[in-house]
This record gives sequence, structure tokens and C-alpha cells, in this order.
Amino acid sequence: MELGLKIWVSSKSGDDIMGTGRWSLLKAINEEGSLMAASLKLGVSYRKAWGLIRKAEEDMGFQLVRKVRGGSKGGETTLTEEGKSLIKAYEVFYMQVSRDAEKAFRKFKGELKRK
Amino acid sequence: MELGLKIWVSSKSGDDIMGTGRWSLLKAINEEGSLMAASLKLGVSYRKAWGLIRKAEEDMGFQLVRKVRGGSKGGETTLTEEGKSLIKAYEVFYMQVSRDAEKAFRKFKGELKRK
Repeated sequence: MELGLKIWVSSKSGDDIMGTGRWSLLKAINEEGSLMAASLKLGVSYRKAWGLIRKAEEDMGFQLVRKVRGGSKGGETTLTEEGKSLIKAYEVFYMQVSRDAEKAFRKFKGELKRK
Repeated sequence: MELGLKIWVSSKSGDDIMGTGRWSLLKAINEEGSLMAASLKLGVSYRKAWGLIRKAEEDMGFQLVRKVRGGSKGGETTLTEEGKSLIKAYEVFYMQVSRDAEKAFRKFKGELKRK
């Protein structure tokens, strides 16, 4: 048996605020320093990636990325301090829930075997 | 912000073994003493409910319900001891993961506010 687990954060009205998709995109931007490189890495279009970021910023209520036009790479996108804090905090949150769930799941399997 | 959480148990090949749907059905059978009453309660057809149970039994590898034909209510369905143990163990597991996740989520929100 395998544990299935899906974790996300939504607004009170049910809209997605943060989940694996947005987190992966922000993390890729942080690593690549470019939205184009990040979208290529994740296999989504630049347009879609940009839309996801705009929506995430709108939902979070603060800026997540900063665009720097020009420069040696011809246009960079970096995370703001708030963006960096968000992916770090989400990662800690996600890992904690995953670890706790795996622990509870081992206990559950143990309970079943005992019968 | 609201926590989104979905928990389930699957086989190694990815088939669902246990989740909120099957758990609700087994719990309703346990409370109602009848598959017909349980399916009405959940708003699924008798045929579908019976299919879910058969599939769950196949996946778990043991009998979950026992059909008693006739009797005062004209046909009862009760949970086996293994079925009862399963819903109890799943409930404990589900509550544990939910509580842990809520705790981690409060911490996550606290982290965001601190910035």
C-alpha cells in the first residue's frame, strides 16, 4: 500500500493560492534566474508561466518576482525577498506534512496487520 | 488562507484502495446496517455502492461486509470485524494527518506574516 497525499493552499473562496505547480515554478525561477528558462524546465509555455505568477501575486497580495530587462542574459526574472521566503516556508510546510503523514501511514498499516 | 488536503491509500500500481469515498460508504453501512440505506444516505446507486465494496475487498484482500439475506429488515449488510477495524484505523489515520497538517499550516502562515 502507498500513501496518497495532496496538499495545497486556497483562498476562502476556494481559489488555489499555492500548490506544487506554483511552488515548482517559483523554485525554477529562483534557480534559473529567468522565467523563460524556468518555463522550459517545467515544460509550460512562457505565457502560461507568466499568467501563473501574476495570479499568484494577486492572490498572495505581494510581489513574488522582479523583472530585470536587458543585462547579459537579455532579460532576467528573479524572486523578491517575499517570493524567496514564500518558497522556503512552503517547502518546510510541505516536508513537515509529508513526514507526519508517512508516520501516521506506517501506524495505520501496522494496525491493519495486527488484526 | 485555507489548507487544502487530500489523503488516500493506493496500491503500488496506483489503484485507489481506500479514501474518503470508500470510508464514508463503509461507515454508513456500519451505521445503517444495510447497503441500500447506506447508498441512499450517500446519494449513490445501490449498484455503484456494491461495486465499490467489491473493489475495496478485492484490493484489501479480505472481506469487508457480510450480507445477511432475509431477517426483519428484509436483507441486511453488516461490516465484518476486519471491515470495522479498517474504518476505525483509517479514521485515526485521517484525523492524525489532518491535525498535523493544520498545525504545520498555522506555522506556515505565521512564517509568512513575520516577513
